[in-house]
Amino acid sequence: MSGTLLDSSIGARRSVLEPLESRLPTVTRRAVMPAGFRAAAATVGIKLSGRPDLALIVTGLGRDDDPPVPAAAIFTTNSLPAAPVRLSQDHLARTLRTGSGSFGWTRAIVATSGSANAATGHDGDADQAAIAGHLASALGVQVEQILALSTGIIGSRLPVDRITAGIDRLAPEVNDSDDALEAFAAAICTTDSRIKVATTSVPIEDADGTRAFRVSGVAKGVGMIHPRMATMLAAILTDAPAQPATLDAILRAAASTTWNQLSVDGDTSTNDTVFLLASGAAGGPAIQPGSPSGAALARAVEAVARDLARQQAADGEGATTLLTCQVSGAREDAEARALARSVVSSSLVKAAVHGRDPNWGRIAAAAGNAGIPIDPDRLRIAIAGTLVFDGSVSGAQAFDRETVRAAMDAPELLVRVDLGVGDGVGEAFGCDLTEAYVIENSEYTT
Amino acid sequence: MSGTLLDSSIGARRSVLEPLESRLPTVTRRAVMPAGFRAAAATVGIKLSGRPDLALIVTGLGRDDDPPVPAAAIFTTNSLPAAPVRLSQDHLARTLRTGSGSFGWTRAIVATSGSANAATGHDGDADQAAIAGHLASALGVQVEQILALSTGIIGSRLPVDRITAGIDRLAPEVNDSDDALEAFAAAICTTDSRIKVATTSVPIEDADGTRAFRVSGVAKGVGMIHPRMATMLAAILTDAPAQPATLDAILRAAASTTWNQLSVDGDTSTNDTVFLLASGAAGGPAIQPGSPSGAALARAVEAVARDLARQQAADGEGATTLLTCQVSGAREDAEARALARSVVSSSLVKAAVHGRDPNWGRIAAAAGNAGIPIDPDRLRIAIAGTLVFDGSVSGAQAFDRETVRAAMDAPELLVRVDLGVGDGVGEAFGCDLTEAYVIENSEYTT
Repeated sequence: MSGTLLDSSIGARRSVLEPLESRLPTVTRRAVMPAGFRAAAATVGIKLSGRPDLALIVTGLGRDDDPPVPAAAIFTTNSLPAAPVRLSQDHLARTLRTGSGSFGWTRAIVATSGSANAATGHDGDADQAAIAGHLASALGVQVEQILALSTGIIGSRLPVDRITAGIDRLAPEVNDSDDALEAFAAAICTTDSRIKVATTSVPIEDADGTRAFRVSGVAKGVGMIHPRMATMLAAILTDAPAQPATLDAILRAAASTTWNQLSVDGDTSTNDTVFLLASGAAGGPAIQPGSPSGAALARAVEAVARDLARQQAADGEGATTLLTCQVSGAREDAEARALARSVVSSSLVKAAVHGRDPNWGRIAAAAGNAGIPIDPDRLRIAIAGTLVFDGSVSGAQAFDRETVRAAMDAPELLVRVDLGVGDGVGEAFGCDLTEAYVIENSEYTT
Repeated sequence: MSGTLLDSSIGARRSVLEPLESRLPTVTRRAVMPAGFRAAAATVGIKLSGRPDLALIVTGLGRDDDPPVPAAAIFTTNSLPAAPVRLSQDHLARTLRTGSGSFGWTRAIVATSGSANAATGHDGDADQAAIAGHLASALGVQVEQILALSTGIIGSRLPVDRITAGIDRLAPEVNDSDDALEAFAAAICTTDSRIKVATTSVPIEDADGTRAFRVSGVAKGVGMIHPRMATMLAAILTDAPAQPATLDAILRAAASTTWNQLSVDGDTSTNDTVFLLASGAAGGPAIQPGSPSGAALARAVEAVARDLARQQAADGEGATTLLTCQVSGAREDAEARALARSVVSSSLVKAAVHGRDPNWGRIAAAAGNAGIPIDPDRLRIAIAGTLVFDGSVSGAQAFDRETVRAAMDAPELLVRVDLGVGDGVGEAFGCDLTEAYVIENSEYTT
């Protein structure tokens, strides 16, 4: 078996592993505005760099009677959530007519970058409320229909006057062009080296005939800003029709295999937020969970989320390589995902990837740290397509180190781990650990 | 409050925080052999460097009728434990006359360094058994009375012939000198930049009068070896009399506040092992848990473990600063410890410490990632003695950045976090993240 590809042997158990993403629709990295949304962005001076730092997404067609649209959200698990997170949580809850959950109805998202509005106390909450109130007035909507995103320096206040003036300027400018969505993606960036956009389209056949839903996402990476707090922000927009609770189920399922499997440096920011909004502008009845069109929409959202997560991993601070770990043969998918996460989160694995070092011992040790039982006699590990460890034939395999090293010297590296005990599969995304990460993050703040 | 020391305000709630370690006996960093133990070390060629790589600790006075002594152990939680871990677990269990647990009876520890004997399959188990069997014969003891420690490259086999020849040479050389204990400490090192030893003495007054127990520990750090797998090995020896289950309780309690609070890079090796052995050579009846002498012994073991853990953190690969985070005002000690661990484990905090950057936002965010509720209005953070954040007075405090930065430029840095809601305290130990860590760990293995 020495030196053979792992694909064929793993594939025999569950074909989804060749490759794991083949079950998802194709994604293109372009900003394409779904029907029923408008956007705009501007520079108001939150960032010292003079780059865009205020952006809006507004739902509807600009009519006075545009109704709010369903929205679902996932917020940071940090015990010190920033003011924009608390405001969005509160506003979603207030728009829910029945039940409770991290979903509701919205008319607009206001995003600021350059200051996180985190650890700013009650003053920070008041600032965020003033901004939401101002936007609500400008749009003629209820204040609880406003959601917020913010990223940047912890502990600094938002310049409310500049932001409200910017809102007055931006509100009439929102438009449904693809460029407007791309401008939104750019305005939420901090030290990201490039914007992160992804889009896909889902043909749907139902009683109303054949239609297509558009699903587009924007995100900011886990790049550091001054003083370099990593924040993960994303918004996915679709013109599909769906109720808030349906979006919530779709978003949570998508995050469990994508953003929850993303690790750059293990730090979860105070501001992490993902929104999923559905304008319904594509028409038709509300998509039901579990229906064919519901499953298609879920796959589309997952595909967009996965691609954005991979863009974020690849653009991790200091990163030179996108590291994907795909795990198969686990007892269940959740265990495969946990193990994959452990591998891409290991500092030792990340440093080895940076050094293009086919160090399977570190991969095995990181796999062992996931808290999941492993039978060493069934464990197999492949790096960049070469089987380097096979527990069924006495462990370490003879392989040509220079060949593997050369294969590792690429913008993307795939590590595969097979546990040989079940059908569970999963993947996780990370990046290498570089001197540049340390230098970026240890520079003086002044 | 700006710029004041946090000590006085925190101290008002629980005096133990000025400083947290004041409840423990003083430790000296010397190797002092407790009565009832002998040791020796040699170079047999496991390491390429030609440095010592085989060492023994033998219990008793060298008489034929020396009985085995009580031992307790803590092993790695890695799901792929190395062969020496599996052997030690098995041997301890086989020496227990009643009950079960990670403790038993032993006559000797054989330590090898340069090869971890991990991921070596059944061959590795056979190698480890052969080594234990050979030592048992040389000492005239039962094989299950042999324990093992090993550290080094994952996936490489141990050179059994060279090791058994070394045992034949070493077994007659074991002696009770302090130098022999120091030689053991040196032989378990890999890329440690210095040996790690700590000793303390506990005066005990009981029905037998006034005596003193010696507690001495040796450890190897979390330094990397070729191919740089961090391993944490330690052995604590005492001449106090105690049953295995008592030692087990003492060792687990000590580890919960020391080694379990140690993080260098978040990776748990396949070989981590800590032993606590009690020769009883100091005489007297077996120490009872909960008695004054039992409490004194527990504090002594904790003091030695804490000092060894701090030596390991300070010698973390690439580290220039020992980072201690002390947390007070938590609802309970366990939550304080978890929060302290989250702070010293954060890559962003570690990089900021390296840059001597008083970046309290990262500390707050890392605290928020411990999964423990935090009231931001009660949160306070001090860096190197200066209060930098006080939620009770609107958060960020004005402080002289250059003064704090200068205070951070030291071999040790203390970060204090007070949650303001209870009496729980705890601490954790780590180190800064440096370019040297990345360089050391990303170098080619060939």
